[in-house]
Amino acid sequence: MTATDPSTLPLHAAITQMNSGDMSASVLMEALLSRIGARDETVHAWKYINPDGARAQARAMDKMPRTGILHAIPVALKDIIETVDMPTEYGSPIYAGHRPAKDAVVVGRLRAAGAIILGKTVSTEFAALEPGPTTNPHNSDHTPGGSSSGSAAAVADFQVPVALGTQTAGSVLRPASFCGIVGYKPAFDQFPTGGIYPFAASLDTCGFFARSLRDLPILAAVLSGGTPSNQDPLAIVDPSMPPRFALFRSQHWAEADSDAKACLEKFASDLASAGGRVREQELPIDFSDLDLAHRTVMLTEAAVTHASHWHDNQNQLSEKLRSQIEAGLQFTEAELNAARETARKWRSAFQTFLEPGEIVLTLSSTGEAPIGLESTGNPIFNHLWTLLHYPALSLPVGTGKTGLPLGIQLVNADTTPDRSQAHLFAVARWTATALDLPIL
Amino acid sequence: MTATDPSTLPLHAAITQMNSGDMSASVLMEALLSRIGARDETVHAWKYINPDGARAQARAMDKMPRTGILHAIPVALKDIIETVDMPTEYGSPIYAGHRPAKDAVVVGRLRAAGAIILGKTVSTEFAALEPGPTTNPHNSDHTPGGSSSGSAAAVADFQVPVALGTQTAGSVLRPASFCGIVGYKPAFDQFPTGGIYPFAASLDTCGFFARSLRDLPILAAVLSGGTPSNQDPLAIVDPSMPPRFALFRSQHWAEADSDAKACLEKFASDLASAGGRVREQELPIDFSDLDLAHRTVMLTEAAVTHASHWHDNQNQLSEKLRSQIEAGLQFTEAELNAARETARKWRSAFQTFLEPGEIVLTLSSTGEAPIGLESTGNPIFNHLWTLLHYPALSLPVGTGKTGLPLGIQLVNADTTPDRSQAHLFAVARWTATALDLPIL
Repeated sequence: MTATDPSTLPLHAAITQMNSGDMSASVLMEALLSRIGARDETVHAWKYINPDGARAQARAMDKMPRTGILHAIPVALKDIIETVDMPTEYGSPIYAGHRPAKDAVVVGRLRAAGAIILGKTVSTEFAALEPGPTTNPHNSDHTPGGSSSGSAAAVADFQVPVALGTQTAGSVLRPASFCGIVGYKPAFDQFPTGGIYPFAASLDTCGFFARSLRDLPILAAVLSGGTPSNQDPLAIVDPSMPPRFALFRSQHWAEADSDAKACLEKFASDLASAGGRVREQELPIDFSDLDLAHRTVMLTEAAVTHASHWHDNQNQLSEKLRSQIEAGLQFTEAELNAARETARKWRSAFQTFLEPGEIVLTLSSTGEAPIGLESTGNPIFNHLWTLLHYPALSLPVGTGKTGLPLGIQLVNADTTPDRSQAHLFAVARWTATALDLPIL
Repeated sequence: MTATDPSTLPLHAAITQMNSGDMSASVLMEALLSRIGARDETVHAWKYINPDGARAQARAMDKMPRTGILHAIPVALKDIIETVDMPTEYGSPIYAGHRPAKDAVVVGRLRAAGAIILGKTVSTEFAALEPGPTTNPHNSDHTPGGSSSGSAAAVADFQVPVALGTQTAGSVLRPASFCGIVGYKPAFDQFPTGGIYPFAASLDTCGFFARSLRDLPILAAVLSGGTPSNQDPLAIVDPSMPPRFALFRSQHWAEADSDAKACLEKFASDLASAGGRVREQELPIDFSDLDLAHRTVMLTEAAVTHASHWHDNQNQLSEKLRSQIEAGLQFTEAELNAARETARKWRSAFQTFLEPGEIVLTLSSTGEAPIGLESTGNPIFNHLWTLLHYPALSLPVGTGKTGLPLGIQLVNADTTPDRSQAHLFAVARWTATALDLPIL
């Protein structure tokens, strides 16, 4: 693979080259299939792929007028996202060979915009903790993170320009951080989750992975059922008013690795040097209550989601998932209600600690991807923001002590739909421009 | 059937009798099955029912400790809501005998609360316009309304205490009005729609039918994943501050029948006599733009939803649905964006015409259920509020010129989640109490 290999193109560049006629859909498809062929035995990102079908679709689209913004762009889907033309196994042996009757809502929107569904990527079991075979493309002895393991690894390894994942605790931003790419977890309900296997329905979000920040508004518009704007996202940032950041270490700072902590602190100081306004936000009293609240809501709802598996297929569930369901069955109604109330309270209360437009700057993960494939790592830097329903991004910003990627997380606590996302994307673009990050 | 037949019990009374031991689950189940046996040939509310399975579940639950607020309560589901243990055919011959791999999210929540899924009710084709065989329980020559035809008819005919439906234009409130029962369409995203066949994902809502206003907070809490409050909803209404109502005829007033118009006007005047504060709200300029906006969003999204059917199963789609898809394919991206912008603007702008806490009082339908089963009636009094994402209720308040039910609609334009629903339920309870409606 060389730097001019079409597989290295981020989404926006692939769209431009395809529209200008500089690259055909078939050329892009062959480059990706060739990359996959060379790397799949190492990375194991895919659960299902149909190269001949993908080739045929690319050929057909080369002869067709442009169907939409994603015309002939290959997209990968985490295998808990339902597809009518490919198996969807939800990462569980219970559903070996299962064929859903219809596409998930977001899949319909991708196809309507012209995308080619290239294949299904490895998910942990039901997007929970039991890992699949996927490895970290930067070092196959390390986990890619989870639960959206295959989607993150495929994008990081240049096997597809973009891929959808899902996040209920930290299942998009953690693997994005471990694999050194951009991950986006939208505000709750920003993109529809119909046709995506739930884990905890009041927390589940459909997010995605990309290698360039320019790709985010394009894919977000398609998943929202809208049309990408022609406006430069950077135009949202008033040049006379540099973005504001609140450096927030959170209650889990002591659990992070020293290289990750140093990386975030250097990043914050670089941002300030580049003209950003950065201040430190102390931990509000009782904010740590959100950890138990997330666990309570997530596991109680997961026990409901998996009630029939618990009764009928218990021997086909992993030990990890059985433990989660058992824990979920223990919470009382009063505990669940208190957890929901804690989340509701902090959803607005945390905003009062921030200045208008301020973006929270925090870690994406505890550090580099851990060694071994048995665990997908720890979501403690992600689950708070998932519970609060805020949109959040992970940006690859450096490497850690063993040379693996480190990410930092940007969170927007503004809960106004669309505006919150647009501002987050704009500040991320400003950040990458100011610090010259290779994700523009 | 007599007034003491268990099948006549509304949900809250069935719960009370079951908890006190005055009625067993089996007794309630037999009463409902007997009612269904006597009436199904006339009403045709059910697409699938398994009497022996339902009996066995009721017997088992009679021996079990109470599992939740809906312990052993039979609930019916519109047949676009997926069930793992019953076929789900989406009202389409394309899916004859189709068995989904999992329950819809709301079904999981019902089961977790102890409900017995009694069966699947007739939906129009994909919840669109092509009707099924269901008749209006009050006069089988008339439509029950649609698209949630079977759910509305089954509840109205005492075949089940409550049933779920869905609304994308007027598919819950119109059949509730035609069948003389209470219908609730929640705020968009109040209840999860995962596992429910979409029609237009940015409009689809899961609502329900009941015969008593006391049932609404119970079922709403279960569908939200929460626990019903012990607080009397009426306690929300400050007795020193009677509820406020804005009588709103809307741009479709001329299209309503004279008996329906007279019914709404009398209802408003009765409310004022009973101490409610009622004023008239004129039609804001440009509010009628919402009609085209709804059509544009709904049909454009429906064309995406049904893209694969359009390509692969066109001869199994009804003429009506083909026309809708064709119309949806004609709208341009600019038209879709303008429609979304119109909806977004009015979602907040309409609130400025109302006083705080004021509830919109309008028609639920153009009048009585039309004669004939070919059409399920007209949703023009419903689709505006669906597009605006506001929660809305239909209350049965009288009968029309041929003795069939008439409904009026209460809408809360407050967009604050939970608060908006709680206030709407409370004002509906106040209304029914003040006017002595038999839905308490």
